[in-house]
Amino acid sequence: MEKEIPVASLQRLPVYLNYLKSLGRTEGNISSGAIARALGMGEVLVRKDLAYTSARGRTRTGYDCGELIAAIEDYLGCNRILPAVIFGAGALGRALMSYGGFKNYGIDIVAAFDTDPQKAGKSVADCKIYGVGEARGVISQTGARLAVICVPAAVAQEVCNTLVGCGISAILNFAPILLKVPDGVNVRNIDVAASLAILSSRI
Amino acid sequence: MEKEIPVASLQRLPVYLNYLKSLGRTEGNISSGAIARALGMGEVLVRKDLAYTSARGRTRTGYDCGELIAAIEDYLGCNRILPAVIFGAGALGRALMSYGGFKNYGIDIVAAFDTDPQKAGKSVADCKIYGVGEARGVISQTGARLAVICVPAAVAQEVCNTLVGCGISAILNFAPILLKVPDGVNVRNIDVAASLAILSSRI
Repeated sequence: MEKEIPVASLQRLPVYLNYLKSLGRTEGNISSGAIARALGMGEVLVRKDLAYTSARGRTRTGYDCGELIAAIEDYLGCNRILPAVIFGAGALGRALMSYGGFKNYGIDIVAAFDTDPQKAGKSVADCKIYGVGEARGVISQTGARLAVICVPAAVAQEVCNTLVGCGISAILNFAPILLKVPDGVNVRNIDVAASLAILSSRI
Repeated sequence: MEKEIPVASLQRLPVYLNYLKSLGRTEGNISSGAIARALGMGEVLVRKDLAYTSARGRTRTGYDCGELIAAIEDYLGCNRILPAVIFGAGALGRALMSYGGFKNYGIDIVAAFDTDPQKAGKSVADCKIYGVGEARGVISQTGARLAVICVPAAVAQEVCNTLVGCGISAILNFAPILLKVPDGVNVRNIDVAASLAILSSRI
């Protein structure tokens, strides 16, 4: 991925992929207009989204079906697997461990960590929960650079520091606080309540 | 909320609020520079965020502490309660039902729905789970206009149609599909895997 893609565009790529695969053909062409009509979307939007991939549509003939499928799969990382870990195996952490959607983007949740000794050693959906003391060893062994933080706000900064110390360089943060991280570490926040509040302002 | 605020700015408002309240004073002034330094943020960003509220800073003196707290609380809806429902009481739905952060934005999760008859009648964190057949009655009775969809992608569109038919006009969708809704209904998508994929592109 070379250009920075907006989340909304990235979210639509698996939708295009599923649609193209559902057609059951890898030969012949398909136009952005046909894709747009089938999915009830605007044609300009479809073309803009697909331009993030390496697929190039041609005037009048459109995209080569097989090439377009391959380009989206390549962009989404379906052909590589990136290991990631989850910190916090509470209700949300366990929900994410059971969630199958990560593989759509070539992401494999390889381990979870929790401070509760009662949880260590257990597994959720084939993903093992480790104690915090094992974080450095497990992260180094799996080569994970991605982490998801699902702990309460009060301990999120401490967990973040630990993860960064273990070599994690990209963090998806569910705790409703702003994490302070060194240069070179990327953080993305998902604040469910804030998203709901944005919606509520439009009612 | 009159102007459309970016999610990132909205997420920072509770952070400012918590900081201001932690100072324990409602009299006197505070400058955007002082807030920025305390929270490790840029001053321009702080001023921009606070401009979404009704608080007005004055050159040199800054903001009146009490006024600023009241303006943020007012903007976040701390002074009104908006009822919302959750559809899908699986792992993610239950995690959201237990999550206390909604009240920061004046949102009250008043009910959940699930197709599984075994779940109907049970409660999670004081929030009762109802059968799908009760959706219309409960939504009408609670006056909820906001809903969170936490069901598998395969049934999300059907659930969405049901909710819209029951008067829901704002939907936070966790299912990794694009929902089709009539004009006047707002949808916001949270695709955790897509967010993680965006991060992975920056490693």
